[in-house]
Amino acid sequence: MKIIKPKDGEILDIELEESLLRKNKEIAEENKKIFNQYGIKAIDILGSIGSGKTTLICQVVKKLKKEYNIAVIAGDLTTKIDADLIRKNGAKVIQINTGKECHLDAQLVNEAIKNLPLKDINLLFIENVGNLICPAEFPLGAHYRIVVFSCTEGPYTVVKHPYIFKEADMVVINKIDLAKKMGVSLNKFKKDIKKIKPSVPVIGTIAKKGKGIEKIVKFLKNA
Amino acid sequence: MKIIKPKDGEILDIELEESLLRKNKEIAEENKKIFNQYGIKAIDILGSIGSGKTTLICQVVKKLKKEYNIAVIAGDLTTKIDADLIRKNGAKVIQINTGKECHLDAQLVNEAIKNLPLKDINLLFIENVGNLICPAEFPLGAHYRIVVFSCTEGPYTVVKHPYIFKEADMVVINKIDLAKKMGVSLNKFKKDIKKIKPSVPVIGTIAKKGKGIEKIVKFLKNA
Repeated sequence: MKIIKPKDGEILDIELEESLLRKNKEIAEENKKIFNQYGIKAIDILGSIGSGKTTLICQVVKKLKKEYNIAVIAGDLTTKIDADLIRKNGAKVIQINTGKECHLDAQLVNEAIKNLPLKDINLLFIENVGNLICPAEFPLGAHYRIVVFSCTEGPYTVVKHPYIFKEADMVVINKIDLAKKMGVSLNKFKKDIKKIKPSVPVIGTIAKKGKGIEKIVKFLKNA
Repeated sequence: MKIIKPKDGEILDIELEESLLRKNKEIAEENKKIFNQYGIKAIDILGSIGSGKTTLICQVVKKLKKEYNIAVIAGDLTTKIDADLIRKNGAKVIQINTGKECHLDAQLVNEAIKNLPLKDINLLFIENVGNLICPAEFPLGAHYRIVVFSCTEGPYTVVKHPYIFKEADMVVINKIDLAKKMGVSLNKFKKDIKKIKPSVPVIGTIAKKGKGIEKIVKFLKNA
């Protein structure tokens, strides 16, 4: 079987990308400095459409809102569905609409931060656009990255996305009640993840029912 | 609520993107000319990870392989899982590994075509990388675009991805047997799709069991 890979100078335009990535990284560092200056713990949440990012954030907000002052930056192409849902659960929310763009970048987050009352916040979630590919290369300045995927995404989610799992500080496997019906194995997922990043903690959840959320809460408190 | 949108000159770098998109479009036109010259019907298949693109292609290949000479170009970041699955079902397969890139582009497809015995093919599927965002803007030269999504992706898949549904010539809602369990409504999905593109045919399938595949086969025969 012939396997084709993109080369330098092709449309994918790798050189340009390098300069974009460098600039993004600089601004991400700047964002992290701001978070540190204000004593804010910042968490980047990544995952495909329907993986359960928003539900997970809502559940964590419910559990932690008495202890922490929480804000959420919610990325989405055009809608504000997620932002509305999260706000109802008691967090301040800034919506970023990326239009046709497939990921948040550090500059957009930098602008969003300026619209937050930073002194009054000590926990910030950044919910990325629903996409397991592009956000991998764009750090935003958060201290930790949580990657969420659902058992309904089929058996190859981990092996098909090595870049994003390599950057994860925690992996959440969601909708574990559907694993059997979907013909996927949690143990196989765990093995796939550990092969990419041996040290990363892996947590199973049913976010909708709040199951497993306490483990994420514990991780965040110790983070 | 504050809503932030990217501006010109920011990291997202819209000007550059325009030149990339223009170049991609030119090569896509060139690809289409080649398809027409050889009497090849070319179909672009788009959808998220786990939506069922590969299963759907395998099922269609099974039904049509006696009538058509079928080839598949399979896009994926790093693995060749899908390509291997499709080949087992009786189609010629060219694998394109995009690495960190989140979509196929016309140049990669142009290169793949050169490795196909074009005279011996009359039906070509191009399976894009699992992503509902980025491929929207990169036509590849195919005659038709089929967008696939699964009921397990939650209730907002359509409304969150207006750009890709606008470009669809057929929409396949897969895993419809899970609609009730996932709390989603097929009628609501259809309404959401028709609002974006009133003319597009919408088909419900359970690709794994072959249910609904005959409607896709009929569409392809008449296309």
